Amino acid sequence: MLTMQDALARLTTYWTDQGCLVVQPMNTEVGAGTLNPATFLRVLGPEPWRVVYPEPSVRPDDSRYGENPNRLQTHTQLQVILKPDPGNPQELYLGSLAAIGIDVAAHDVRFVEDNWASPALGAWGLGWEVWLDGLEITQFTYFQQAGGLNLDPVSVEITYGIERIIMALQEKTHFKEIEYSPGVSYGEVFGQAEYEMSRYYLDDADIDANRRLLELYAAEAQRMIDAGLPVPAHSFVLKCSQAFNVLDSRGAVSTADRAAEFGRMRRLAGEVAKLWVNRRTELGLPLGTIEPLEPARAAGAVQTSTGERTLVFEIGTEELPPGELRSAREQVRRLLTEGLAATRLGHGDVRVFGTPRRLIAVVPAVAAREADHVRTVKGPKAQAAYAADGTPTKALEGFVRGQGVTIADVETEELGGVPHVVVKKHEAGRAAPTVLAAVLAQVVTGLRAAKNMRWNDPKLSFSRPLRWLTALWGDDVVPVAVSTLSAGRRTRLLRTAEPPVADIASAETFLETLGVNGIVADHADRRELIVIGAQDLVYPDGKIDVKGEAALIDQITDLVEQPVPLLGTFDESYLSLPDAVLTTVMRKHQRYLPVRDADGALLPMFVTVANGPVDVELVRAGNEAVLRARYEDAAFFYRADLATPIAAMKAHLDRLTFTDKLGSMADRARRIAALALSIADRLDIGSPVLTRAAELLKFDLGSQLVTEMTSLAGVMARDYALHAGEDRTVAQAVYEAELPRNTGDTLPASLPGALLSLADRLDLVAGLAATVGLPTGSSDPFAVRRAVLGLLAVHRATPALAAFDLFEGLALAVQPVPVSEQVLADCRDFLTKRLEQVLVEEGHPVDRVRAVLPHAARPSVADTLLAQLGTAVGDPAFRAVAEAVQRASRIVPEGTPAAYDPAVLKEPAELALHEAVVAVPAVHDVSDLVRSASPLVTPLATFFDEVFVMADDPVLRAARLGLLATVRDLGAGLLDWSHLRM
Amino acid sequence: MLTMQDALARLTTYWTDQGCLVVQPMNTEVGAGTLNPATFLRVLGPEPWRVVYPEPSVRPDDSRYGENPNRLQTHTQLQVILKPDPGNPQELYLGSLAAIGIDVAAHDVRFVEDNWASPALGAWGLGWEVWLDGLEITQFTYFQQAGGLNLDPVSVEITYGIERIIMALQEKTHFKEIEYSPGVSYGEVFGQAEYEMSRYYLDDADIDANRRLLELYAAEAQRMIDAGLPVPAHSFVLKCSQAFNVLDSRGAVSTADRAAEFGRMRRLAGEVAKLWVNRRTELGLPLGTIEPLEPARAAGAVQTSTGERTLVFEIGTEELPPGELRSAREQVRRLLTEGLAATRLGHGDVRVFGTPRRLIAVVPAVAAREADHVRTVKGPKAQAAYAADGTPTKALEGFVRGQGVTIADVETEELGGVPHVVVKKHEAGRAAPTVLAAVLAQVVTGLRAAKNMRWNDPKLSFSRPLRWLTALWGDDVVPVAVSTLSAGRRTRLLRTAEPPVADIASAETFLETLGVNGIVADHADRRELIVIGAQDLVYPDGKIDVKGEAALIDQITDLVEQPVPLLGTFDESYLSLPDAVLTTVMRKHQRYLPVRDADGALLPMFVTVANGPVDVELVRAGNEAVLRARYEDAAFFYRADLATPIAAMKAHLDRLTFTDKLGSMADRARRIAALALSIADRLDIGSPVLTRAAELLKFDLGSQLVTEMTSLAGVMARDYALHAGEDRTVAQAVYEAELPRNTGDTLPASLPGALLSLADRLDLVAGLAATVGLPTGSSDPFAVRRAVLGLLAVHRATPALAAFDLFEGLALAVQPVPVSEQVLADCRDFLTKRLEQVLVEEGHPVDRVRAVLPHAARPSVADTLLAQLGTAVGDPAFRAVAEAVQRASRIVPEGTPAAYDPAVLKEPAELALHEAVVAVPAVHDVSDLVRSASPLVTPLATFFDEVFVMADDPVLRAARLGLLATVRDLGAGLLDWSHLRM
Repeated sequence: MLTMQDALARLTTYWTDQGCLVVQPMNTEVGAGTLNPATFLRVLGPEPWRVVYPEPSVRPDDSRYGENPNRLQTHTQLQVILKPDPGNPQELYLGSLAAIGIDVAAHDVRFVEDNWASPALGAWGLGWEVWLDGLEITQFTYFQQAGGLNLDPVSVEITYGIERIIMALQEKTHFKEIEYSPGVSYGEVFGQAEYEMSRYYLDDADIDANRRLLELYAAEAQRMIDAGLPVPAHSFVLKCSQAFNVLDSRGAVSTADRAAEFGRMRRLAGEVAKLWVNRRTELGLPLGTIEPLEPARAAGAVQTSTGERTLVFEIGTEELPPGELRSAREQVRRLLTEGLAATRLGHGDVRVFGTPRRLIAVVPAVAAREADHVRTVKGPKAQAAYAADGTPTKALEGFVRGQGVTIADVETEELGGVPHVVVKKHEAGRAAPTVLAAVLAQVVTGLRAAKNMRWNDPKLSFSRPLRWLTALWGDDVVPVAVSTLSAGRRTRLLRTAEPPVADIASAETFLETLGVNGIVADHADRRELIVIGAQDLVYPDGKIDVKGEAALIDQITDLVEQPVPLLGTFDESYLSLPDAVLTTVMRKHQRYLPVRDADGALLPMFVTVANGPVDVELVRAGNEAVLRARYEDAAFFYRADLATPIAAMKAHLDRLTFTDKLGSMADRARRIAALALSIADRLDIGSPVLTRAAELLKFDLGSQLVTEMTSLAGVMARDYALHAGEDRTVAQAVYEAELPRNTGDTLPASLPGALLSLADRLDLVAGLAATVGLPTGSSDPFAVRRAVLGLLAVHRATPALAAFDLFEGLALAVQPVPVSEQVLADCRDFLTKRLEQVLVEEGHPVDRVRAVLPHAARPSVADTLLAQLGTAVGDPAFRAVAEAVQRASRIVPEGTPAAYDPAVLKEPAELALHEAVVAVPAVHDVSDLVRSASPLVTPLATFFDEVFVMADDPVLRAARLGLLATVRDLGAGLLDWSHLRM
Repeated sequence: MLTMQDALARLTTYWTDQGCLVVQPMNTEVGAGTLNPATFLRVLGPEPWRVVYPEPSVRPDDSRYGENPNRLQTHTQLQVILKPDPGNPQELYLGSLAAIGIDVAAHDVRFVEDNWASPALGAWGLGWEVWLDGLEITQFTYFQQAGGLNLDPVSVEITYGIERIIMALQEKTHFKEIEYSPGVSYGEVFGQAEYEMSRYYLDDADIDANRRLLELYAAEAQRMIDAGLPVPAHSFVLKCSQAFNVLDSRGAVSTADRAAEFGRMRRLAGEVAKLWVNRRTELGLPLGTIEPLEPARAAGAVQTSTGERTLVFEIGTEELPPGELRSAREQVRRLLTEGLAATRLGHGDVRVFGTPRRLIAVVPAVAAREADHVRTVKGPKAQAAYAADGTPTKALEGFVRGQGVTIADVETEELGGVPHVVVKKHEAGRAAPTVLAAVLAQVVTGLRAAKNMRWNDPKLSFSRPLRWLTALWGDDVVPVAVSTLSAGRRTRLLRTAEPPVADIASAETFLETLGVNGIVADHADRRELIVIGAQDLVYPDGKIDVKGEAALIDQITDLVEQPVPLLGTFDESYLSLPDAVLTTVMRKHQRYLPVRDADGALLPMFVTVANGPVDVELVRAGNEAVLRARYEDAAFFYRADLATPIAAMKAHLDRLTFTDKLGSMADRARRIAALALSIADRLDIGSPVLTRAAELLKFDLGSQLVTEMTSLAGVMARDYALHAGEDRTVAQAVYEAELPRNTGDTLPASLPGALLSLADRLDLVAGLAATVGLPTGSSDPFAVRRAVLGLLAVHRATPALAAFDLFEGLALAVQPVPVSEQVLADCRDFLTKRLEQVLVEEGHPVDRVRAVLPHAARPSVADTLLAQLGTAVGDPAFRAVAEAVQRASRIVPEGTPAAYDPAVLKEPAELALHEAVVAVPAVHDVSDLVRSASPLVTPLATFFDEVFVMADDPVLRAARLGLLATVRDLGAGLLDWSHLRM
């Protein structure tokens, strides 16, 4: 059996063989290997650096007295830094797994999107978790920024979680059982320290002492920065971080403290980073500098194919996140379509496929050459080209000289209505490979992701590195060259293929060659393989909820190139855990498909989808072990939570920050409760259930399980509340307060639940609008859009709340910061726009939607009116009224009050209208309105026929306009007539 | 080339192959690998433990900004713990050297006594520095105590100094040049940190902040102890230690601080240790317990030899310190001689030889058996044995039954003058092997060293482990069994011999077999090989001062088993360093013999003595490199010192502690100066030279060179003072103040020098007597005995100080603590006893010495009187006077005052004596005394003949006794007549 210490030694040896030097762990406590100066400082600046080292990583918050099988206050990382990116870091990494005996062809090794950021260090990078049969064993990151400085060159950071890898390899279910060295277990060596340090971190550390330590360290860090000494300064920043973590694990960090401390650390780390870069420069960059890679030189185009041939263009990437893959497919389609459109090359439709590792564009029937072409070059205006005597002017002479033609070659042509001198140039169409090379290069450089990164390429930037290009037109290579990449006919297959590359004979055989090698390029094909494969595996006892799991299946589809569905099982005993816990673990953490019986009850099995021809039994066993560990973990938390009084969980909310300015989660829960009760009070719909539910609100955020799986908030609250003997209706209301969690989610069915849900979202919107502002563009970190959609949905779904005005609710949502009238106005506007969008998306004509938007504050009212409008628009009376009102409103200048002195009126037509107007009663729905307003239609028509509104007498004019304004405003509280298209 | 990181990896692999587990360095700063809990805690208690780990060891005081080639604020230790002692740790260690490519047979690898103690940790052990061709590369310790607890079992601690080993292997002269990993130098990786951390430790650390950190850490340590959590407590003790070291390197530790802090750390470490042991016991000793080794079973004696044969007994040891070797030889001689004397075995003289690895006793002509023997068993008294009628009593019956004889077998014999019944038992002598086995076992168990230790043997204790026994009588093994050891005929040869063992045919061939294998058992033979070999090597240009270096040669002789003298050279440029620096390095640090030319000037060469058949060129080169590094270091310090003003060096004395209670070295220097000036004042012998020298006194203790080589104190003072332009006489006086440094050393030649020397020693004696007490037994850590001997020697050698009373001097030596009259009396007594001893050792008859001891306060006066006495004792007049005085003093009761009323006297004889007595003048030397007192002799004789002293009349009796007391006291200020033997 490979012991843990042997594994460390072998990995170290592997990486030293790759040119890494070995340093020792940091001799002050750090939370991760990243903090060791061998990473944090060395990734800065232009010097090369390759290093490997173990790092005992201290996470006071993860203290569990050594009882939790998978969680330790100190775990062992093995950290590797490759600076610059060697171009094949994934392959090197896979080699390291082989070095500790992992058969990467037999196992399912996957790179699953995981982006890393440490705001306190001003650091971030993009990359993956590496999964081994579903187990996260490594963090793999292209390090982009540290200490707030952009990293150039970028470093590859590979962080192995040694205990987890060893537990998997040794098939252990508790870290203490790891065979650390021959015959000695991990627990025997480190068990006592796990317990005692947990005691220190959770129970016994002196809070005041650690506060003072934190201040002393911060002061020393600043002094060292001032002294220009980044090395000791960095060491003190690390000590700050540890002291802060101790305070945090002792529950002694207030919201304000946390924000302030993160700010201070970020500032200190930033200054250290700057200083380090300066010092290294002063020292003359002792380790030298890295030369950027040379740009690739495009080969000359060689055209051997003739006629119309297929174009295939493959952009080879490292594993793209599923969302980015979808977006990139669309971009390639657009860029290539536009690019081809700008040529004169005949071609068929552009189709684009994608897998995590490649984007493939296929265009059939691309002509061998562009059509020949006459190009008109615009010269001076004819008038300016020739003198009155017809002799060429200097302007014309200059033009022909510039064009390399003679005056005999010019013609006159009307351009923009004005005669100009022009030259017509006959240009031969270019060969397809030449034309395509330029187009395809632009496709590559045009690619952009939501979050872009750098790697070893001096010019490119994308979601993940682009590593190769394959471009063929017919039998010929299209000589695309982009930065360091140049296209050929070689593609890469699965990394585990032997050999892992293939040369493509012609564009037409490309997809076939991939297919023969197992790679399914088309998303739809892969999806089908997964769905059918999964269903087959579970048949006849179980079924997959293909529709319900559509999003998950789509995601899985874009995580593999060659989907291999596998059925795994788990112990039935875990079925005693709540359904939501089980499925959340499967879906969110593991991307497994749950299996249910005919009645919808979970079966103790799951489907996972491996990538490529793995050893099925091995991968199944591995995934089962991972799920078992996760369930064991969840069960551990669940049991712990059930043993914890609700009040204790609720008390924990004081320690959870909502936002810097909006206080803790406890503050937020208090605000929501108060708001809900206040609304209920106004509407006179309070109840003991509401009161109790408001007290409990969000308590499960203080549970261990929800801390681990935040998406279970609400679900667990209901579960724990029931276990604690709360009334079923109370438990349900606490659960419903969290609904809807996303578009299409269940909505609160009970009134208390709906009230709490509304209050929650009103508080969120008002608070964030007043502090960070309402979301713009795609950034919406606090999901304010989702909250607003929830507000609308709950209101619309809860008749009892129809009278409740959401705008008033916003104003009632008292915040710890002032909420200005402008902010409230912005909120109202934001909510109104979202309602418009929702209604339109539901298929309502935009004019009618807009007509009911005055009721945005009470969307259920808008719904009603919209329904009435739907009926009314078929009614000629309604149309007549509408036209009448619109006609009145077209004439009346804006701002005219709907008031007049009837005594001024003289003409019979205007008197008749006046009488009709005063006869219209107040109305509350559209059919009332039609019925009531119909008598106006004729008098109004007569009025327009007979009365000259704009009388010279200003008093009379004012009265007539006031009369019309009154008509205009008929039903103004009900409909905005102006938008209605009749 | 083996890089540093490869060396670490190979050593780690080697030790894991030996069953060590690997842990990570401590994640808080530590000064040595010993502090890592993997050593400090794990050596405690009964659990087994084998571990290897690197430890970046932080020594703020060693900060040199990366400039010194051999000194770093952080150096890399590789630490190995073997618990229990595996029995062959030295061999395992040598294997580890082979693992990094060191050919231990070609190199000169030596185990040189070095005992380790950390008072702050309550820890100590005995062991060695390991030398590789003269370079200290490893600390090898049998760890005896930690946290004040005795370690049982004992751990073997092996600490490699990686940078030094690598510098040697890579032949680098500066640590920055080490090839750390392929193509990357140590300086490139760690140079900046060396500079910056040096800046922090020496210049920039905030003293107040570090003081506060120290207090916070200490408080947390105590809290964790109180909470029963040794692991976090230990971590905080380490943080205390680092904070303290930072304060120390910043010069912020006062004498009082240091003492208090060491006390606190010792206490905390002790509590942590106790707690750890208790916790492990509570946890059920997770790693199990170590079974003690089984005792050896003695084989039955098999006697094949006959007649008188030689006995040889070898006790195999690990390398004994030379002093212990000498002592052990004597012990073996004594124990064996006594043991044999208690047998009836005929034998020749016991001879004992020794090398560092063996003690060998050889006894020729040991008889094959003890002589037969009649043993008399004492029975009841004859009276009680037989009834009046001659029949046996019950007592007799019981006796014969007990002895297994019949009444016919008993005899009657007078014992103690009383007739007893006895039984005569004829006992056959036992066979030699049987008898010898018991005797030899007692020799082994009787061995004791000045400092004894434990190893893996459950019962034995000695200076270093005993590893084997070889015992032969003639051809036969003597079946000695002691604890785990049992003797055989196998001996061990040099560790590098092939094979490293030999079987001995017979006792008579033992020494020959050793000799054939290169081992020279006899100290005298080895010494001769060294002396002749060394002389040959340097002939004809140089010579070795065999007499002057006798002690060193003796030491070297006992460091090797097979002496191989080698000549090395060094660069002539180093001859510009002071002679004393060069020779101190050679002698003290390297045990090299200096070579001088005919005029006594040093030559740039040295002789070192390797052990066994090494590769001469390799070992020479290695030793030359070591000396070069040492000289480079010395030159570095010397240059730095020359660039430092004397005042700056002197100012540094504030930071050197003398003792807790006696203040800093600066305090002590001030006291000495004041005392010297005060004495000079009293004697009216002050001078500007004295005044200036007193100001400078001991300033060189603040120099870097003397900090490194304390034995150069004074020598460097003179050198630096001259370089600083001080007067030659002043420089000489500052130097002479330190004389004599040991018995037989040069004495001050100048009066200022002598005064300062006396003042120095008076201060030392008075201060230590008043605080720690005068030395008793063998312990004399502050060398008070040496100081007293110096006092006496200087006084005796300085005629100008003859009048100075050392006892008065002691009273003048004002201390920061009260010095009681009792302490001063003890000092006087101590000094008097030392003078007696010195004078007796010089060959003076003890009676005369004691006669002059009243002058111990002025030993030069004692000298004069002793000389006079030497002449006087041949003079019949002196003898007559002496006898007269002694006769008078025998008669007069003690306490009788020397006063009488002459008017009471009546008898002519007493009146004549009275007249003679009053005629005696005051005298100041012995010849005066004889001349003056001779006239008393006859009157006194007459007085005794004619006068009855003890007259009935009390008045008369008192007068007569007073008269005789006056005679008794004649010259009492001069001589103590009572001790003189005539």
